[in-house]
Amino acid sequence: MADSDRSPVSVIGLGAMGRALAGALLDRGHPTTVWNRTAGRAGELAARGATVAATAAEAVAASPVTVICVLDYEAVRETLDPVAGTLTGRTLVNLTNGTPEQARTTAGWAAGHGVDYVDGGIMAVPPMIGQDGALILYSGSQEAFTAHERTLGALGTATYLGEDAGRASLYDLALLSAMYGMFGGFFHAVAMTGSEKVPAAEFTPLVVAWLNAMIAGLPAMAAALDSGDHSADDSNVEMQAASYVNLLDASRAQGVSTELVEPMGALLRRAVAAGRGAGAVSSLIDLLHTDHAGN
Amino acid sequence: MADSDRSPVSVIGLGAMGRALAGALLDRGHPTTVWNRTAGRAGELAARGATVAATAAEAVAASPVTVICVLDYEAVRETLDPVAGTLTGRTLVNLTNGTPEQARTTAGWAAGHGVDYVDGGIMAVPPMIGQDGALILYSGSQEAFTAHERTLGALGTATYLGEDAGRASLYDLALLSAMYGMFGGFFHAVAMTGSEKVPAAEFTPLVVAWLNAMIAGLPAMAAALDSGDHSADDSNVEMQAASYVNLLDASRAQGVSTELVEPMGALLRRAVAAGRGAGAVSSLIDLLHTDHAGN
Ligand SMILES: NC(=O)c1ccc[n+]([C@@H]2O[C@H](COP(=O)([O-])OP(=O)(O)OC[C@H]3O[C@@H](n4cnc5c(N)ncnc54)[C@H](OP(=O)(O)O)[C@@H]3O)[C@@H](O)[C@H]2O)c1
Ligand SMILES: NC(=O)c1ccc[n+]([C@@H]2O[C@H](COP(=O)([O-])OP(=O)(O)OC[C@H]3O[C@@H](n4cnc5c(N)ncnc54)[C@H](OP(=O)(O)O)[C@@H]3O)[C@@H](O)[C@H]2O)c1
Repeated sequence: MADSDRSPVSVIGLGAMGRALAGALLDRGHPTTVWNRTAGRAGELAARGATVAATAAEAVAASPVTVICVLDYEAVRETLDPVAGTLTGRTLVNLTNGTPEQARTTAGWAAGHGVDYVDGGIMAVPPMIGQDGALILYSGSQEAFTAHERTLGALGTATYLGEDAGRASLYDLALLSAMYGMFGGFFHAVAMTGSEKVPAAEFTPLVVAWLNAMIAGLPAMAAALDSGDHSADDSNVEMQAASYVNLLDASRAQGVSTELVEPMGALLRRAVAAGRGAGAVSSLIDLLHTDHAGN
Repeated sequence: MADSDRSPVSVIGLGAMGRALAGALLDRGHPTTVWNRTAGRAGELAARGATVAATAAEAVAASPVTVICVLDYEAVRETLDPVAGTLTGRTLVNLTNGTPEQARTTAGWAAGHGVDYVDGGIMAVPPMIGQDGALILYSGSQEAFTAHERTLGALGTATYLGEDAGRASLYDLALLSAMYGMFGGFFHAVAMTGSEKVPAAEFTPLVVAWLNAMIAGLPAMAAALDSGDHSADDSNVEMQAASYVNLLDASRAQGVSTELVEPMGALLRRAVAAGRGAGAVSSLIDLLHTDHAGN
């Protein structure tokens, strides 16, 4: 069944993200049915026109598409196993964070019950949902994705990555690791300046400008990784390893834990020891493949 | 002595960065004298008009201002100790990466020799030098900085942080930690997608867009840190800790070392154990102060 601008949708899970998803569907005029394990979280959505289902089965039965967004895949299983029969012949869009393996297992479970399955990863925080800036990655059944693409567009920019149900999770977790790396670097940075009583709000604009400038270097690193040519010497690894020692020494002197920053220091040292000191820092990346590095 | 548009400048250290600094000065028409420990690195600069000094003393004697940019402070000391007498009455601008303590020690050494001292941190890669986008942080003698501000402007946007010679280093290393956090996250991300043979050049535009979106959240984290109010629950720590387990599990399954990403997982677990699970991730930052956390 192809969707229209007003296809009914059910949303299971009314945490911060589920509420944002249901809210975006209501904003676009979709008849929206919601359910949450713990009652009482749908108040505001009901006021905006959502139907509050009494059970998960009732929610699933109300729409051709159910979007589920709960804490983890264990919660998905606990919630959906009992209502598999009701899901048969319908589409399940699972926006719960999980691993590629969990996504593939769930796709298999869905296939076994005659459920069309699309897995997804939300690359946005709740306030971004419903806007173009909210990227949502999907993989799994292309037919189901295409049939409901317009509805899914209400949640954010929908990008389909292929039939492998695990692909969206892989991209999601990879992007999350990039985010947490940046967050960790930011945490350490403001802890360092905070140790000298510099307000974080005063220092953060410098961090933002600096990160924006350094992000511009990522495509060149990607090209070096793809080509295997790490010979660029504008910022050689040996020099970077030397300044990293300063970063670690100064952190200790300022009373800031080095826990988040130690591993990059170790990786730089390993790269120097491996004879990569004269080249570019992109040469560190393949040291992370445990197949190659025996790590 | 106040500088003019054409003040003579000497540059010591002709690595990737020293060459970029000397090149930017030549571009602006400054009579530029250069010296490097190992001969033969000044060829291109000489062709562009630089005077190549035979000794460090000769370089220092040629200009009222000497800019030094070598590997580390040990190299600074080895190079400048023998020429301290020649530096007396002149200005030394040290753009070598180092710790706040090293900067303060060097300021003391300079004061002992009657040398006006400005310490600096270059927040740019060599190709950016000479452009407004190149931020260079300075601290130390305000008088010397002001006297040569125009000359220093040839290298990039000059920002003065105060009389404490160590302040520029502190900011520099804090910003570097932010950059390396982001780089580490990027390395892990492309290692994960690379494990499924996704070319880094294909995945990196998604990383760039995603990081740009997530950078927008840093000022709110800074405000939460300054106020101590981490109660925002759009993206609670417990949910983040749960998805971080997926990130670690999937990394192992893909054969990607978790060395760069483990510490953030441990920090999230510590925050949950400390009862911070319902709040915002900004609450992790003060766990890094070893004075507070006993870490
Ligand atoms: N918030 C974000 O910034 C963000 C961004 C991208 C992706 N995500 C992903 O979106 C999903 C939901 O996140 P959230 O922010 O909405 O988390 P949340 O606010 O903590 O809400 C968690 C939700 O999961 C439900 N749940 C937990 N265990 C359950 C179980 N065993 N059975 C049924 N329901 C269960 C909770 O129901 P109760 O009310 O009954 O406890 C609640 O509805 C997660 O996978 C998260 O990784 C979140
Ligand atoms: N490149 C960047 O992206 C970048 C960005 C910001 C800051 N920085 C900082 O700028 C400084 C220089 O970096 P770079 O990229 O130019 O490094 P580089 O290309 O590796 O050059 C290192 C320079 O240091 C000199 N040197 C090393 N040990 C010495 C010693 N004992 N005595 C005298 N000179 C010595 C080298 O001279 P020889 O030729 O004789 O070995 C060479 O001129 C470092 O502190 C770095 O952290 C660099």
